[in-house]
Amino acid sequence: MSVTSTQIELAARPVGDPKHSDFKIVKVELPEIKEGEMLCRIIYQSLDPYMRGRMDDAKSYAVPVAIGSVMEAGCVAEVMESKNARFQTGDIVNGRFGWRTHIISDGAGVRKVNKDIAPISTSIGILGMPGMTAYVGLLDIGEPKEGETVVVSAASGAVGAVVGQIAKIKGCKVIGVAGSTEKCEYVRDELGFDECISHYNEDLAMQLSNVCPNGIDVYFENVGGKVFEAVLPLLNAFARIPLCGLISRYSHVGEFPGPNLLPTLTRSILTNRLKIQGYIITERWNRFPEFEKDVSAWIDSGKLKYKEDFVDGIEQAPEAFMGLLKGKNFGKLIVRTSEDPTL
Amino acid sequence: MSVTSTQIELAARPVGDPKHSDFKIVKVELPEIKEGEMLCRIIYQSLDPYMRGRMDDAKSYAVPVAIGSVMEAGCVAEVMESKNARFQTGDIVNGRFGWRTHIISDGAGVRKVNKDIAPISTSIGILGMPGMTAYVGLLDIGEPKEGETVVVSAASGAVGAVVGQIAKIKGCKVIGVAGSTEKCEYVRDELGFDECISHYNEDLAMQLSNVCPNGIDVYFENVGGKVFEAVLPLLNAFARIPLCGLISRYSHVGEFPGPNLLPTLTRSILTNRLKIQGYIITERWNRFPEFEKDVSAWIDSGKLKYKEDFVDGIEQAPEAFMGLLKGKNFGKLIVRTSEDPTL
Repeated sequence: MSVTSTQIELAARPVGDPKHSDFKIVKVELPEIKEGEMLCRIIYQSLDPYMRGRMDDAKSYAVPVAIGSVMEAGCVAEVMESKNARFQTGDIVNGRFGWRTHIISDGAGVRKVNKDIAPISTSIGILGMPGMTAYVGLLDIGEPKEGETVVVSAASGAVGAVVGQIAKIKGCKVIGVAGSTEKCEYVRDELGFDECISHYNEDLAMQLSNVCPNGIDVYFENVGGKVFEAVLPLLNAFARIPLCGLISRYSHVGEFPGPNLLPTLTRSILTNRLKIQGYIITERWNRFPEFEKDVSAWIDSGKLKYKEDFVDGIEQAPEAFMGLLKGKNFGKLIVRTSEDPTL
Repeated sequence: MSVTSTQIELAARPVGDPKHSDFKIVKVELPEIKEGEMLCRIIYQSLDPYMRGRMDDAKSYAVPVAIGSVMEAGCVAEVMESKNARFQTGDIVNGRFGWRTHIISDGAGVRKVNKDIAPISTSIGILGMPGMTAYVGLLDIGEPKEGETVVVSAASGAVGAVVGQIAKIKGCKVIGVAGSTEKCEYVRDELGFDECISHYNEDLAMQLSNVCPNGIDVYFENVGGKVFEAVLPLLNAFARIPLCGLISRYSHVGEFPGPNLLPTLTRSILTNRLKIQGYIITERWNRFPEFEKDVSAWIDSGKLKYKEDFVDGIEQAPEAFMGLLKGKNFGKLIVRTSEDPTL
């Protein structure tokens, strides 16, 4: 079976916001599979903010994508042909296949997707990496207690939406921060957060203060920048900050203008006995079984809702990714690269 | 028995560095003790950086000292007369008696000092609050592992000196940051740190980088400011920062000039999965028995050394305290207000 994969390579390291010329669409003829390999047709490809970091060559927790290499991504795929004992033709699998339509895989890091729990697209969303990121960061670092106030930035996003709903399940008062009016209404009315404030508001700090009369006990950080600065004076003694992402800063170039707020933060860490901790979900994958059990049950009982934002065609991935960094998506952003056979 | 106590009151809230006019020396005639009370003669009075925070009325973990009230301090005292069943004349006790020579106490929060372990002055030093602060912050938050690199600021101080020596006991490579050449030599040659660098060096960041070829795994923070900024780029993945004090910032007035380093810190927290946590030792007093057992044994075996810097006379307390905030003391700063009967 001769197959052509369309794939997106990193053409140049972005300076500031990524642009189209930083990506290159190429077509590659795939060879025949060898013993132990399988040919996969990608159905859904995830787009996530962390991918911006992989485009830089700054020191970080993961090696950068090399220029000329295919952009990385988690994907859901169908096995088209297999010489790998673990997988058979027709299996639906999850793997880090990248921004492409087809791949030959040796099965390393690939797992079968359970088609019975929820639509298979959720294995790169609420039942996959973003959901795990929310679950582990909130529960293991944030340690929310009943009656506490939890603030979540990027509240309508793939991670934030799950964080806030789990915090509600745990009996917390939950405040979201999101962008558009439409997103804020969704977060409040559909997801059941107590309030949601737009970061477009000029008086964000005042509005946040008004809806957090008892201060903030957990701040789940996805964005950095002005939202963090608005949260800072409201943090209670012993507040916890799981630091999951800083999307507002990923494309920043150069120094940040003063005043220097680092001493303000460290003073608050000291006087309020704060805990701020960063984490990377791939290092905490041992929590997957418990996560899958809990989140599946919550989806099943209607306690946990999710929204997916589909874009059709691999060629649309760069544009969609650039939009993601600007908050233009609404829900978990997914590139649909081919037909979903389970629908 | 009629006794006059000489005591130091807070006369005004300092703007910036404290000055003599912020304090007032007063003499107070103490009444006869009542049932349940005891009269104590203070022998040693502690001076600690945290007291600067108590002079402000900014929101903090403890209520500020009121204008016209006696400055707070931990003290070692001798019971002169007692109508309290728990204490007898001649007992040596530790209590938060304040900047004064005599006090009538009802015994609340007062404990007897074991005269057999070490000189009684250590009950406000290495065997008291500063020692506990070092022990708990390093072990419970810093979690040093054998072979790791630990950096300690204010390394010759009452807390820093203990932190570094315990880190050595735990098998770490330990780098101190201190002020004068004399202090740095003491930290390296007497206390056994691997290296000690002066923060007066203009190329502090470069020097620190040179002596930490494997990066920094634990930074025990006592000072803030330029030492923190020099440490920041050297932090390893999963580094821990127990945030104990920020002495370089306590008297700062107004904003800090840019660039804004807050995003630099949060980026490092994310990419390096750092944990930064503030703590207050009085909230972790449950660790006292284990602390006392370990530290007594280490002092006994010569593994843990300490240095005390005595100032004579309660009238000298303000001057000595102002010096402490500038790093003029050398070792645990103690005001000797009367004769030590155990010597």
